Amino acid sequence: MKIHGMWYSNATGRVLATLCEKEIDFELIPVDIMKGDQKKPEFLAIQPFGQIPVLEDGDFKIYESRACMRYICDKFPDKGTKLYGATPKDRALVEQWLEVESQECTGPMLDLVNQVLFGPLFHGKAPDEATVKALTEKLGKVLDVYEAQLSKTKYLAGDFISLADIAHLPVGSYYFNIANQHDLLKTRKYVTGWWQDISGRPAWKKIVEMATPDIEAWKKAMK
Amino acid sequence: MKIHGMWYSNATGRVLATLCEKEIDFELIPVDIMKGDQKKPEFLAIQPFGQIPVLEDGDFKIYESRACMRYICDKFPDKGTKLYGATPKDRALVEQWLEVESQECTGPMLDLVNQVLFGPLFHGKAPDEATVKALTEKLGKVLDVYEAQLSKTKYLAGDFISLADIAHLPVGSYYFNIANQHDLLKTRKYVTGWWQDISGRPAWKKIVEMATPDIEAWKKAMK
Ligand SMILES: N[C@@H](CCC(=O)N[C@@H](CS)C(=O)NCC(=O)O)C(=O)O
Ligand SMILES: N[C@@H](CCC(=O)N[C@@H](CS)C(=O)NCC(=O)O)C(=O)O
Repeated sequence: MKIHGMWYSNATGRVLATLCEKEIDFELIPVDIMKGDQKKPEFLAIQPFGQIPVLEDGDFKIYESRACMRYICDKFPDKGTKLYGATPKDRALVEQWLEVESQECTGPMLDLVNQVLFGPLFHGKAPDEATVKALTEKLGKVLDVYEAQLSKTKYLAGDFISLADIAHLPVGSYYFNIANQHDLLKTRKYVTGWWQDISGRPAWKKIVEMATPDIEAWKKAMK
Repeated sequence: MKIHGMWYSNATGRVLATLCEKEIDFELIPVDIMKGDQKKPEFLAIQPFGQIPVLEDGDFKIYESRACMRYICDKFPDKGTKLYGATPKDRALVEQWLEVESQECTGPMLDLVNQVLFGPLFHGKAPDEATVKALTEKLGKVLDVYEAQLSKTKYLAGDFISLADIAHLPVGSYYFNIANQHDLLKTRKYVTGWWQDISGRPAWKKIVEMATPDIEAWKKAMK
């Protein structure tokens, strides 16, 4: 399979994490959003909203990161890690928590990453304290629900890892690991254990390794 | 099946539309968000974010409207209207466009409905012209992508109706039909034909009929 995108892109990262967990070989075709590649006519022809990633499988192309994740799992149910659980009800709960990731968690977490990491780094803009406080409270409430769930089951959708967990890796890595924001973890031991587990998986470490040179270069630029 | 929610709620409406298309009997258990029912402990026990709807199927409960839609279609693939197409690639494109609905279209459309309909109606607040203008432009760009797609295929994911189309019905009905906002349709003939087609389906008309008394009461209150 081919994936058009960048290592450092969150949406691309969700699909890369899935490919690695499913042990699927892939080629990354760079579309550099820092240079505006995503708005060029040849890219708009395959992604009309001008966003990465796009997944290419022979002559079939698909975009929207979470749709790509599902496509990979539906095509290779038995290869690598099973990411939908074992039963139709497992799958339904995976879908529920994948929606929670997309509708509830990723919004405030990404806004925080923009405040505390990307703003200072790319726009020389200090975080706005009131905004950070409000977003942190909002995200904290979401993570309270996660804490309650993860005190009952090892992963979000049950006692099996799934697409719903994996989908948190890119933005979570920026927030917890690269921006070093740990306050929300300190009071939530189940979320902490879950985060250490999923972010320490070999599949995700591969992606982190590949993204590291870019991210180190950013950090240097920040100093 | 039982569904905890309200006729007038967009997220509930997406699941009701799916149940009607699939010809599944259901009982609606009212959770009145105008009275704060969704934040009561007994409801938070089944939906920890305090939002409707929740779908109940025997002793299985699931929330997040689009996850409920998928659950219904996965459980009854051959009953009523097929809403995933016929092949795995069809389904992948249904997922792609269902993500587009959720990530691109529903946000600005619902913000517009809040400006031009719910704000005046429930908060006595006139629409903010600059906000309406910006949102209309944003939604127009999304609908330009829809127009290009619908000039090639009868429905979003292909020449078959699917969950991706159905998911637009509740917010689309508020915007185009109840708030009577037609400007974005005038210059987009394929979107117009598609909207007339999907909003005129018997399954959706049933829901509209059931919601009509509430909506008429609101409109009267508005005058
Ligand atoms: N809903 C889309 C979002 C994709 C997205 O936001 N991609 C970002 C990179 S993480 C992008 O392309 N940004 C550049 C732009 O929007 O111009 C998905 O999940 O695939
Ligand atoms: N992502 C959720 C959103 C649900 C949602 O926003 N429900 C609204 C009604 S349409 C609600 O319960 N609002 C009341 C509240 O949030 O307090 C879904 O799709 O089910």
